[in-house]
Amino acid sequence: MKLTQLETPALVADKAILESNMQAMADMLAGTKLRLRPHYKSNKCAAIAHRQMELGAVGITCAKLEEAEDLIDSGVEDVLIANQVVDPGKLRRLAELAGKCRLTVCVDDAENAEALSAAACAAGTTVHVLVEFEIGMQRCGVEDPALYVELAKKVDSLPGLVYDGIQAYAGHVSHMCADEERRTQTEENGARLRALIAMLEKAGLTVRTLSGGSTGTSRIKAGQGLYTELQAGSYLFMDSTYRALDNLPFRNSLFLLTTVVSKRGELTILDAGVKSLGVDQNAPVFLTMDGEEIKVDHSAVNEEHCKLFSPDHELSLGDHVLIIPGHCCSTVNLHERLYLFEGDRVVDRLRISARGMSR
Amino acid sequence: MKLTQLETPALVADKAILESNMQAMADMLAGTKLRLRPHYKSNKCAAIAHRQMELGAVGITCAKLEEAEDLIDSGVEDVLIANQVVDPGKLRRLAELAGKCRLTVCVDDAENAEALSAAACAAGTTVHVLVEFEIGMQRCGVEDPALYVELAKKVDSLPGLVYDGIQAYAGHVSHMCADEERRTQTEENGARLRALIAMLEKAGLTVRTLSGGSTGTSRIKAGQGLYTELQAGSYLFMDSTYRALDNLPFRNSLFLLTTVVSKRGELTILDAGVKSLGVDQNAPVFLTMDGEEIKVDHSAVNEEHCKLFSPDHELSLGDHVLIIPGHCCSTVNLHERLYLFEGDRVVDRLRISARGMSR
Repeated sequence: MKLTQLETPALVADKAILESNMQAMADMLAGTKLRLRPHYKSNKCAAIAHRQMELGAVGITCAKLEEAEDLIDSGVEDVLIANQVVDPGKLRRLAELAGKCRLTVCVDDAENAEALSAAACAAGTTVHVLVEFEIGMQRCGVEDPALYVELAKKVDSLPGLVYDGIQAYAGHVSHMCADEERRTQTEENGARLRALIAMLEKAGLTVRTLSGGSTGTSRIKAGQGLYTELQAGSYLFMDSTYRALDNLPFRNSLFLLTTVVSKRGELTILDAGVKSLGVDQNAPVFLTMDGEEIKVDHSAVNEEHCKLFSPDHELSLGDHVLIIPGHCCSTVNLHERLYLFEGDRVVDRLRISARGMSR
Repeated sequence: MKLTQLETPALVADKAILESNMQAMADMLAGTKLRLRPHYKSNKCAAIAHRQMELGAVGITCAKLEEAEDLIDSGVEDVLIANQVVDPGKLRRLAELAGKCRLTVCVDDAENAEALSAAACAAGTTVHVLVEFEIGMQRCGVEDPALYVELAKKVDSLPGLVYDGIQAYAGHVSHMCADEERRTQTEENGARLRALIAMLEKAGLTVRTLSGGSTGTSRIKAGQGLYTELQAGSYLFMDSTYRALDNLPFRNSLFLLTTVVSKRGELTILDAGVKSLGVDQNAPVFLTMDGEEIKVDHSAVNEEHCKLFSPDHELSLGDHVLIIPGHCCSTVNLHERLYLFEGDRVVDRLRISARGMSR
């Protein structure tokens, strides 16, 4: 089938670029101590997670228990939930899941660690733990190094739990446009982490794992020799936000295929909006089917429409437009299917198996 | 089951408030010429559409062909697709659907009208048409009244099509906060529409239907005596954006139930973000389980987290927080299930049957 025969809006990915992004990541990490543990939140397709494992990923990172269940149900055997799990019912399920694979979860609270330990003991399983360190994102994690060491020692002492090391995700750095700015910030964070690791080792703890990092800081972290695991996810697809960053070897592979449904003078209306396009980051970018960027004076994304005000471009009713989403992760979550294409042909369709799995 | 036993994030609605909003709408329209054709985009639950029909709705409005298919498959017999349908495959399906119910679609282009006519003739069905008038939203529709009359005459003459009247949706007015501002703008638009109707009647056309309007302008349109159909959808649920409008008789019934998963000083982290909360309009509002508003210095919505900076409020790990979404329509679209509650009990669970149906 031709790509333009898909009913729109349709989420599509260029298979060759997707593969070349995976290869670029493997090349970047080759010969370094940094191993890839790609984040599932960006693609939510079990089929893609398995392809990443084939290409050398040590396991998969995910955000939610439901995503971990989806991954483990598909056969992935090493999963990190890079988040805190608090609900008692979820803790029971998490502890049960740990009997099926190597399962790691983040902790930043002593009582939560105790509840997790109790659940693991009840299930007769071992849960691996990364104690999260607040590295400047102002989100979860322990901020004070002394309190961090105290919590790590507690986790290390609790039955059913294994203290593996540190989760430190500097999400605020990943979208800084200038490579230099990302580099400076990553080095400053590195100094804090080295000091923390020294304190942990002095306290008799072994830090086997330091996990974090994103697409934006991937090259910098590969050269830093500090982190052991990289949680990048967006490198597969990229988006208009990551596209604005310099010095990344990844190209945009993800597009929303849309149709022009109304036309009046300089105004063109597409059949896709907020319900099929993530709008939590930058504005989308619009391309013709030849890949040429459509220059717009301004654009707006309504619920089921994009409005393009473009005096320079001639689009007609029924024409197709490819949209580079502002944010790949929130866009993928809106779709059931991801169509892969080569040239102008649809060559595969992947189920977005963890779509909407936010629990 | 208790409400707080639901795994979070969970989309929940207060059943009594939902019912009272439906009653308030019925009361508002009683004795006027305005009939309710509520918009499916806001709830996407076939069960709710049927309840609206029981309470006197003349039919249902939807945005997309897939939504129409969902409604018709559930037994709704009068559906308006308040949008342009251009794709040839979709036109064929639309024409077939018109054999199962009274189906109306919007048109703003002569060639599109011809393609629709051809599809109806091929299917042996009749498709009702509202020609869309651009009433200031800068989206679909014909702007020039003379061109509008020309297109309406063309539609009226085409086999398989019936010209029913005008679609005129002033979406840009619906969120103006002051009632006075919405009223002035609605009256100005009313004058334009009266002039258009006079031109259409002079040309020998009958305008049986004038459809449009939203929750924000519902009371004004009820008193105006001009529109025949009101396409309000959000009145069921409301949200933090509609909550800011004065003089509306509807109360917030929709909430996202969340859990505190991390806590550090004045910072509280909830287990829900962009992937379960629509962020295309205003910021969300946070409530305790007692319905008390949590005052926040500022808040941020990440992919799977809300961050609340709140010096005044004591929340603990595992506590529940109810979020009033910034936009009900884009929030509903992210969920598979809507739980109804009465007091602190879950009393029903509705399937969000048209979730993600953007084609």
